[in-house]
Amino acid sequence: MSITRRSVLAAAPAATLGGSALAQTQPQAQTPGQAGEQPAFYRYRIGDIEVTAIHDGIGRRPLEGLVRNAPLDEVKKAMEERFLPTDVLPITFTPLVLRTGGRTVVVDTGNGDSGAPTAGRFIPGLRAAGIDPKDVNTVVISHFHGDHINGLRLKDGTWVYPNAEILVPAPEWAFWMSDERMNQAPDAMKGAFQNVRRVFGPVAKDVKQYEAGKEVAPGVAALAAHGHTPGHMGFTVGSGRDGMMIVSDITNHPALFVRNPDWAAVFDMDADQARQTRRRILDQAAADRTRLAFFHAPFPATGHVVKDGNRYEFVPIQWGVG
Amino acid sequence: MSITRRSVLAAAPAATLGGSALAQTQPQAQTPGQAGEQPAFYRYRIGDIEVTAIHDGIGRRPLEGLVRNAPLDEVKKAMEERFLPTDVLPITFTPLVLRTGGRTVVVDTGNGDSGAPTAGRFIPGLRAAGIDPKDVNTVVISHFHGDHINGLRLKDGTWVYPNAEILVPAPEWAFWMSDERMNQAPDAMKGAFQNVRRVFGPVAKDVKQYEAGKEVAPGVAALAAHGHTPGHMGFTVGSGRDGMMIVSDITNHPALFVRNPDWAAVFDMDADQARQTRRRILDQAAADRTRLAFFHAPFPATGHVVKDGNRYEFVPIQWGVG
Repeated sequence: MSITRRSVLAAAPAATLGGSALAQTQPQAQTPGQAGEQPAFYRYRIGDIEVTAIHDGIGRRPLEGLVRNAPLDEVKKAMEERFLPTDVLPITFTPLVLRTGGRTVVVDTGNGDSGAPTAGRFIPGLRAAGIDPKDVNTVVISHFHGDHINGLRLKDGTWVYPNAEILVPAPEWAFWMSDERMNQAPDAMKGAFQNVRRVFGPVAKDVKQYEAGKEVAPGVAALAAHGHTPGHMGFTVGSGRDGMMIVSDITNHPALFVRNPDWAAVFDMDADQARQTRRRILDQAAADRTRLAFFHAPFPATGHVVKDGNRYEFVPIQWGVG
Repeated sequence: MSITRRSVLAAAPAATLGGSALAQTQPQAQTPGQAGEQPAFYRYRIGDIEVTAIHDGIGRRPLEGLVRNAPLDEVKKAMEERFLPTDVLPITFTPLVLRTGGRTVVVDTGNGDSGAPTAGRFIPGLRAAGIDPKDVNTVVISHFHGDHINGLRLKDGTWVYPNAEILVPAPEWAFWMSDERMNQAPDAMKGAFQNVRRVFGPVAKDVKQYEAGKEVAPGVAALAAHGHTPGHMGFTVGSGRDGMMIVSDITNHPALFVRNPDWAAVFDMDADQARQTRRRILDQAAADRTRLAFFHAPFPATGHVVKDGNRYEFVPIQWGVG
């Protein structure tokens, strides 16, 4: 054991400077990569329903311009309060797999190979969790943004779930598959319309549309949560006395949009409707102490919300306990 | 797709009942077990030092009698506020592995095969992280409670780290290895003294004792944090401009003892000294925004604390970001 006074003094002041804000990658031959890169999944139960949250990874979005109706300084302050970067928002993607009534059901598919290099890890995560994409019976899509649908089809055209029925929100389908809507859309939005056609075009006749209030899998019912997109859906999951709400994209990162439910992310297509939906669902969940699964909360992206004046706080579950 | 009105109605009310408090285990042939059971690790960096937090699992302790100086109702309320069980405290165990200066250093060893059936998963976690116990160069022990030292030696006598130097706090060694202290101890404490002898007796002449303020590994210095046990230590970790404090057992579960830093857990041997240590370190960490690694925080057990009046709040890192 080599102990020197100098090295102790050198180590001590450094410890007061705070941790690094971003994980860094240093692949090592004999070890898996960073925690953000290795396949990661978290399994829990809602009654008889087994839920597996799978870490598709993280994308980073410049903070500037991200919130439409708050000054950048306030947004940076909210990030700093949660010890997050103040230049970019690290956005987590968390698709779910449900085993319910003998069926294996994927809810949203992640980025596939179309997202950031630090995302698109759903399939390795799925395999690590012991599930083969061929064995998936149903894929339920909450809405048609790329980070939810691109995992259905790789860039080379490969269809990832050969044996699954594909369920999509009827109002979402009506909006995005409308050529009239596409032609009327601003140029910046045309890519999103085209991507929906790229993913669904070849299977359009087989896709099944669901309406709010309908069951999409045993114990899983669609919940209207429009605003983020015109047909955006959440889901109630119920089994026996246990329940949960899958709230999809009613918020982006909780540090910003659960804390400040009136803030509007640029991703929300109808900001007012999205805010009303967010308020309504968070209010009910806080009052009822309902467990929630977010798509964009930090992995494993499940917990509860508590009301705090006019704001909310996200309380993640304890790993291995909830 | 089978959608019935009845099943939708059956599912919806259940979702308002809140999630299940405890994960349940249902082993499946083709899949790994529950998230709390599969090997789980989380890797991050402090400058050039690679840190791997490994989930040794969870033990459950009746809530009654756990906090010496608070009414059970208040303790239950604190648990309920964080959506935790109100009958037992689920205690997470999180040993660390540091790669620093070419050395592989384990900080505390977990329960080995001496703890609850839901704990003792450090070695599978270590292997999942690509590390063989034979390749560990140093084991640093923070204090001599069983959940920190029992991983050194299995119940059948097997010594787990054949090639590692073993570093223990000098004041801890002096206390627990004193036959006089053992003979004076109340009967309820004698088992702990005997366990220290069981673990260290056969290697007593090879164990190296360290003092507060000394370097125990490159960039890692011992920090006096007495009270929980007479020689209990934390550690500063520093590399370049990055730093962290390993705070060992200055608190048990943050939901109770970060929120209520004056509460005394029955595990604290000198409650007053433990409280002063807890206050001093949390105060400094909050003021300096220092990253912390707790042994008993929810996995991956690392984040920051913020001051909130006379209390503190634990803010876990975002998976894959910090």
